[in-house]
Formats: sequence, C-alpha cells, structure tokens
Amino acid sequence: MQDIAFPEAGPTLWAPHELTLRGPASGNPFLDVTLSATFTRGTRSIEVPGFYDGEGIYRIRFLPDQQGPWQCRTTSNAPGLDGLAATLDVGPAKPGDHGPVRVADTFDFRYADGTRYLNIGTTAYAWNHQGDALEEETLATLAEAPFTKIRMCVFPKHYRYNQNEPPHYPFALIKQGSSTWPGKVEDAGWEFDLDRPNPAYFQHLEKRIRQLGDIGVEADLILLHPYDRWGFSRMSAEQDDRYLRYIVARLAAFPNVWWSMANEYDFMENKSLADWDRMIGVVADADPFGHLLSIHNAFPLYDWTDKRLTHVSIQRPETEHSLLWRERFGKPVSVDECCYEGDIAEQWGNISGRDLVHKFWLGVVNGGHVTHGETYYNDAEILWWAKGGKLIGDSVARIAFLREILEAAPDAALEPMLDNRNHRIMKYGADNVTGPEMSKPAKGEEDWPKIRFPYPIAHVPGEYYLAYFGQRQPREVVVPTPPDQFYSAAVLDTWDMTETPVAERVTRGDLLFIQPKPNLALVLRRVEG
Amino acid sequence: MQDIAFPEAGPTLWAPHELTLRGPASGNPFLDVTLSATFTRGTRSIEVPGFYDGEGIYRIRFLPDQQGPWQCRTTSNAPGLDGLAATLDVGPAKPGDHGPVRVADTFDFRYADGTRYLNIGTTAYAWNHQGDALEEETLATLAEAPFTKIRMCVFPKHYRYNQNEPPHYPFALIKQGSSTWPGKVEDAGWEFDLDRPNPAYFQHLEKRIRQLGDIGVEADLILLHPYDRWGFSRMSAEQDDRYLRYIVARLAAFPNVWWSMANEYDFMENKSLADWDRMIGVVADADPFGHLLSIHNAFPLYDWTDKRLTHVSIQRPETEHSLLWRERFGKPVSVDECCYEGDIAEQWGNISGRDLVHKFWLGVVNGGHVTHGETYYNDAEILWWAKGGKLIGDSVARIAFLREILEAAPDAALEPMLDNRNHRIMKYGADNVTGPEMSKPAKGEEDWPKIRFPYPIAHVPGEYYLAYFGQRQPREVVVPTPPDQFYSAAVLDTWDMTETPVAERVTRGDLLFIQPKPNLALVLRRVEG
Repeated sequence: MQDIAFPEAGPTLWAPHELTLRGPASGNPFLDVTLSATFTRGTRSIEVPGFYDGEGIYRIRFLPDQQGPWQCRTTSNAPGLDGLAATLDVGPAKPGDHGPVRVADTFDFRYADGTRYLNIGTTAYAWNHQGDALEEETLATLAEAPFTKIRMCVFPKHYRYNQNEPPHYPFALIKQGSSTWPGKVEDAGWEFDLDRPNPAYFQHLEKRIRQLGDIGVEADLILLHPYDRWGFSRMSAEQDDRYLRYIVARLAAFPNVWWSMANEYDFMENKSLADWDRMIGVVADADPFGHLLSIHNAFPLYDWTDKRLTHVSIQRPETEHSLLWRERFGKPVSVDECCYEGDIAEQWGNISGRDLVHKFWLGVVNGGHVTHGETYYNDAEILWWAKGGKLIGDSVARIAFLREILEAAPDAALEPMLDNRNHRIMKYGADNVTGPEMSKPAKGEEDWPKIRFPYPIAHVPGEYYLAYFGQRQPREVVVPTPPDQFYSAAVLDTWDMTETPVAERVTRGDLLFIQPKPNLALVLRRVEG
Repeated sequence: MQDIAFPEAGPTLWAPHELTLRGPASGNPFLDVTLSATFTRGTRSIEVPGFYDGEGIYRIRFLPDQQGPWQCRTTSNAPGLDGLAATLDVGPAKPGDHGPVRVADTFDFRYADGTRYLNIGTTAYAWNHQGDALEEETLATLAEAPFTKIRMCVFPKHYRYNQNEPPHYPFALIKQGSSTWPGKVEDAGWEFDLDRPNPAYFQHLEKRIRQLGDIGVEADLILLHPYDRWGFSRMSAEQDDRYLRYIVARLAAFPNVWWSMANEYDFMENKSLADWDRMIGVVADADPFGHLLSIHNAFPLYDWTDKRLTHVSIQRPETEHSLLWRERFGKPVSVDECCYEGDIAEQWGNISGRDLVHKFWLGVVNGGHVTHGETYYNDAEILWWAKGGKLIGDSVARIAFLREILEAAPDAALEPMLDNRNHRIMKYGADNVTGPEMSKPAKGEEDWPKIRFPYPIAHVPGEYYLAYFGQRQPREVVVPTPPDQFYSAAVLDTWDMTETPVAERVTRGDLLFIQPKPNLALVLRRVEG
C-alpha cells in the first residue's frame, strides 16, 4: 500500500493526509467499486470513505484530529483494494493549521484547536468556474480582503450575468446544449452521464479550495443550487445521494470546507423538504470529520433546529434579528445573504455600501455573523458576487475595520446584551407589546430607565462592551457596564474608520458626550481599578 | 342681541363668526350658566355651544359652511341670554378661506371647499407657552417652513428640557408648586381651581391658532397629555369632560383646528380605555363643525377604527407601514411621531436628517402622511420639538422639496400601488410567507416578474407615478406604468433636491437607466400620445 502525503510528506495534525491506491479502471468504477478505510487510534475508530479519481486511481483522505500513531485498514469490494493496512504517525500541527471551524460557545465559531475564528464571509458563487486568469485574480483579491469565508458553488451557475460555459463539467458530457438565458433547464438540451463524475472538474475545485486555505479563507461549499441549465439541479434522488457521497469523500479531509446543502433550497422546484432531510442525512453520515453543515433559504426559513445542522445560514435583510434567530434555533446565526452592495436592477443586489456596513454592525452587535456580496454592474458582466474578480465597493474597507475591532476584542464570544424592551419589540412587533409590559424594567434592570441604553450591545461581561448606534446620533449616552468596574470609552466611526477616545475611566451611570453623527459605535474596555 | 364679526365685519363662508353677549358675572358662570345657539338655514339646523369668557362676557362662535341667510336663536338657563335671535347673511368666502380640513378619498385630506391640502406636519408641543418673543420667532420660522400642520398642546408641558413655567395657567391658580424635574405630579404641590378656566390663557391660545391660520398652518391641538407637574393630566372625569366641552366651544369655529385627544394616551396612567372612549364622545358630540379628531399613541396602537375618529395619528418609526395601517383602520394615516431629527439621548429624538427625510418619502409612497420634529440640543434648551424657535436641521429643506414635488403632482389622492409580494412580506413578515405564494404573480400581475418593480410607488392611475428607491440604488428599472400610455421620466434626488430627466417618452416594460445613488425617487408623468 502506497502512502502519499498531501500537501507534503509526513502526516501532521489538522493537515489532510492522502492514501493513493491503484485499482480497477474498467466498467464504471464510480458505481462498481466500494472503498473505505478505518483509522484507529487507541479506542477511537473513524470510518473514512474513499473515492475513484479516474484512470485506475483511488484515494482515501484522512484529516487527523489527534497526534500519534493511527492504524489504517481498507475495505473494498475490489480484492486488490481490500484489507490493505498502514500506520500513520501523526506529528504536531504545522504553523497555521488549526483544523476545521467548529461551533463554540453555542452561538459562535472557533477552529478545532481553539484558535479564534471570525466568520466574516463573502459571496462569489461561481468564481471557480471562470478559467485560470479570473480565478487567480479572485484569489489575489481575497488575499487582500478581510473575508474569512467564501460562499461558492460546486456546480456551475446559470443566471442573469452568468452566461458563460464553465471550463469543465462535473459529469461526463454526452450532448452539448444551449447557453441562452432565460431558459428552462429541461429545454436547454444538455445531457450528461450523471453516473460518471469528471475527476478533472473536482481536482480543479480541490485546487481552489486548497488555495483558499492557504490565505485563511473557509470554503462554504454550496452542494446544490437552482441556477442551472445543465440539469444538475434535477438529478434523481439516487444520483443526488451518490454525488453527495462522492464530494464528501473527496473533500472532507480539507479542513477549510463547510457544507452548505443548498443555496435558496426553496427555489429548487423538484426537491421536497423530505429530499432535503434525506440529503442532509447523507452528508452528515458520510462526513467522518464533522464539518459545519447548514442549508440556505431564499424566502421561507428552514427548520435549522435539525440536530444535524450546525448553524443557521439564513437569507434575510434584517441582520439585527440575529438575536431572535439565535434564540429560535439555538445555534450560531450566519446571515449569508442580507442584500449585496451594488447597483443592479435586482433588489437583493443594489444596496449602498453604507447600508451593507450598517447591516454588518447590526448583525455583530446582535450576536450574528454577516456575509458580504458585491453586485456592481460592468459591461464584461464580471460581478464579484458570481464570478469574483476585483472588489470596487465601499463596504470592504469598512468590513476590514470591523474585523480589526473584533480582533482587538477579548478572545471570547461576544454575547448580545438583552435590552428587554427593544428585544421584545423586535420579537413580537411593537403592535403586540402592551404599554405596561414595555415600560417596566425586567428583573436585574431595576435601575432602568436611569441606565437606559437603547442601542444594541455585544459584550464579554465585565471585560468589553461594543455598542452600535446605527442611524441614531445621540450626543450623550449612559455607561451601561456593571457598577464598580471601570472602563475606557472610545467612539468608533464605522464609516470613516476612526477610533476616538472619549473617556479614560468611567463606570455604570456615567454620562458620555459624543459628537453626533450617524453610524457610530462605542467601545468600552475594562481598565484597572 | 349684539353681533360682532370676527376677525372682521360681515359673516363670510368658512370664517369664524362670533356673537358676544353680556350675562351674569357672579357665582361661577363657568359652572352655573348654560348657553348655546341654534343656527338654522332652510331645513338645516346646527347646535353651537357658547362659553363664558370672563368679566360677564359670553360668546358663541359659528363657522358657516354655506352662504346665505342663517337664523340664530340662543338657549340659556340665564334669562338674559335665553331666546335671543339674530339673522346672519353669510357672504362668499374671502380669498384663502377654505374651511376645515376633512378626510377625502378615504385615505387623504382636503379643505372643506375641495382645495388640496397636503398634510406635512411638524411638532412643537409647547411653543405656545414660551412668551411672546419666542412664540413670535416660532411663527416667523413656520412662515418660511414647508409645514402645513403643527402638533401642539393646550396644556403646558413638564418634561426633560421643559422646566420653565408657562406665562399663564389654564385654570385659576390656588397654590404655587415646584418646577423640579423629574418629579411626580402629585408631589409637585400645585393647586388650581379646575372649575375655573382662565380666559386669558385661552385667549392667548386662540391668538396663536389664528396666527397659524394666517400662515396656512393647521393646529393639531393636543387636548390632554401626560407631561405634567400641575395636575392637568389628573383631573376627574367630570372635570375632563367639562374642560373638553369648554375648549370645543371656544375653538370649534376656528377652521384650522384639529382635535388630538391625547399625546401618548397610554402614558396617562390614570386614564383608562373607557375614559378615552367617553372623552372622544364628549368632543365628537360637542363639536358642531366636524373637525378632524384622533388620538395619538406611544406604544400600543389605539383602535382607530372607532367611527368617531377621522384618521390615524400613529407613533411608529416604520412610516412604510402606512400601507398596512390604511388597510387595518380604513382611514388616512398620519405618522405623527416617527422619531425626530436631533441628537438628544432619547432614542426617539436622535435620528439623522437623512433618516427623517427617508421616513417622509417612505410614508408618502406608501400612502401615509408624515410629521416632522427636531430635537437638537442647545444650552438654552430651546428644542424645536417642544418650544419652537429656529429650525437648524437638515431635513426641513428636503421636506420642502418633497412638498414642491407633491404640489406639482395632479390634484388627486396619491394611492400606493400594491406590489403583491412586498406587500405580503410587510404584512405578515417574510417568515410567514411561503415560497410559492411569494413567487407567483397575483391576478392582474401576470407579466410579473417581467415588470417587476420592487419599490414602493404612489400613483394617480394613468397619470402620475412616484416611486422611491430608498436605500436601494438600482442602475436600471422597468417602467411600471400601464401599457399603451406614454410617460416622461425624471429622477429625483431626495437629498440633493434635484430633478434630472431620464426619458421623454416611455411606457410599460421600457428600461430606464439611472446613475446609482441612495435615496433617489422616480417620477413618471403622462405625456401625449
């Protein structure tokens, strides 16, 4: 049994390790040959699926989550692939290898090794189907951008501003169809052998995912989507499941992969909720390494309480409702589409940079995570949100400023402080919240309204308070920290990207005076004494 | 019987006409003497209450709504005031006299004579309790401002930034109390003879209302309010009713008076819903001239379906929900507090000018009417919203621009166009609107999504379309007019106050290209052909 290290020799913690095997190439190995391996360390045992990579090559990819010796033994219906054994001595993680991102503190994320991860996503659904020149430009842009995640599709995309054919197809092409838009999938005339994945297609995808990993970007990989002229959105249940198992087998060892079952699942007309339920099970069962797993809606929310889903990947413009979705679903909330900065006709793609930055801050101080997208039109129809390329919008620099602020915060989950009144208004709608209920302080808020601070705050209790005033421009605010603790106070201009100290040492109830302006934030950091 | 014309000799249509009578001055004429008059013209008969104005003077004020001869006959328990008769020959209206504002076209307003009235309000609750210098400054400011209505209180105001004593009190003073804030009404130590209105106080109020009328401003008169240290918010039911009858008798002949039962009725702790119901009846019954009548909430909405209420006077920040409140209450919607432009600590008083202008436009294109207020702090604590004075905010000039646009529109009610999808989202919340329901066109919208125009539009069907893009900045939009009609198209920059033509002759389905920017509006005006 041959043992090839990936990306370089010697298995190390949190790095994918690849076993390459030679096996049958005749018939349809994708269908005919089963292959997996069991990796054992002490009493722990992990079943890892293998996959066929074409030309008689089979691979099994392992992502070690513990150092030390692991025993590996293969199982296959092909005699030459069955019962092979090897030992891997997993060394310490290389610098920069932190493992997959996991849920931490119920509503937040961290890398598997405990390192802080800030979920600041962007969107370029089809960047990986644009050919090398543009794809490399996208990578160069990302390397300079503040984003730690990109939402991207496995399959090519057919949509307005997305007419070009991809360089490769994910399955063996039988018959070329048309590239017109708008058009119906079933009329476009494409035919593929959906039982024969195209290894070159997936190798290309892997290369791009690896390159994202190199620049610290997670790939939130959209497994299915409705923007289709080729038929990949209309495969049979059996074909869907087989495809899902195949891609999980190929990609689960990549630490920076997240599974997004679908973009806009409700726009996929021939998938039912039962289909999604089944397919979520397929991915969750097939993945040996427990990657983040979610599904993304267009209109109706998905029931993200499903225990197999790790987080909420919601589309809604009201990022401030993160507070409510946290409660409702009990998971981290990633607002993965809240409208994109841009100028296209489509309403989801024409908010201003200022408005998107506002939505980012609202999301963060309400305990959510927000994803960026950019849709400025140009004659080449290279819009970042779909094809990548360059970022020209106003929001990116401000999102970088927000990231700096968050990186300088204590290394702990930022929890939203619940201001009872605002919280209830948001939750029930003010029309349904009666007068007395509104105006009485909740337990523990007995000094309200003296310490009335009607702005959303995220905090690390007793350490750090980050408030955002949004459209409000108060000239004075009351310090909302606990009493008998002292804090420095600074005003952040979220648009001009400045931090201005306003007080060196204040405590609960002290008044702060601020130069009024929209889109300011306030940061209170604990000081001695 | 003496007959004194007011404001000058000779009764004319839509001008108050005052009968002045001498009667008993001993005892308490406010309580002891009843007085009214019946005005008859042909088969019509109107019962008009009189009132005691101090020093043996009684007055009956009549607002003629028809030209020609009216017979008047008094009724009183004072023999010298009973059974007096006179004839008034009402001449044609003087220029500028249009009568009271009435509801028109279900959701809109017009003067009684049919002249267009645009309800563009402002707020200066206590401007009429500030002494002559400041009050005259306020009037001078209003004369230059775009506002056609001012919300103002009969009683003086006790609140933050409102510590000064008024020059007069509405009732006879028995014992001076304290002026401290915050404080409880019952602890402030004031005592008044609530059975003895102070005529000088009400004469002053009348003078100010008349001056407002001279500059085309309606007085939306707040009859009761909770911001009180003198006890006027805690009168007995009998005293409340007597006060209401008194003020209606005094003021109902002023054409520019609206009755606002309360500001923030739900903050008046010792008034129940039954009290409000009763008091609405008192005002509606006492008013011979059918003035506009509403009540204003703080948090819980009032049930404005009450048939005696003429319109909705709501406090809510979401002016775009005017569309829903119209439907719910079946009446004109005046969003009389949607947050004020300013910089004070209070959340209702610190939005930016840009945000307030945005709320104005959202209200208008969604079929509502929006009221302005300004709360920039200054050391003299003369904040426009309470005391009047000068306006310094950014929104006023933009509201004037909006007024110009509306004045140049056809003289007809602007009706919101219902985009089914957005309407349902707003109505039910997107979480409750399912996928298929969302994506299917409604009847009559079969060419949706081709003619998808996801922005609110107010229109005069077949004549005029006014859309507002708000935070959206589309580079292209589809003309949403009916087919086979042609329109000119111009872009309005609601902030920079410019109008830029974009097309001379377009029809449904044509594409318009716009220089993307937030806060633009689009106006389509019918052209020949």
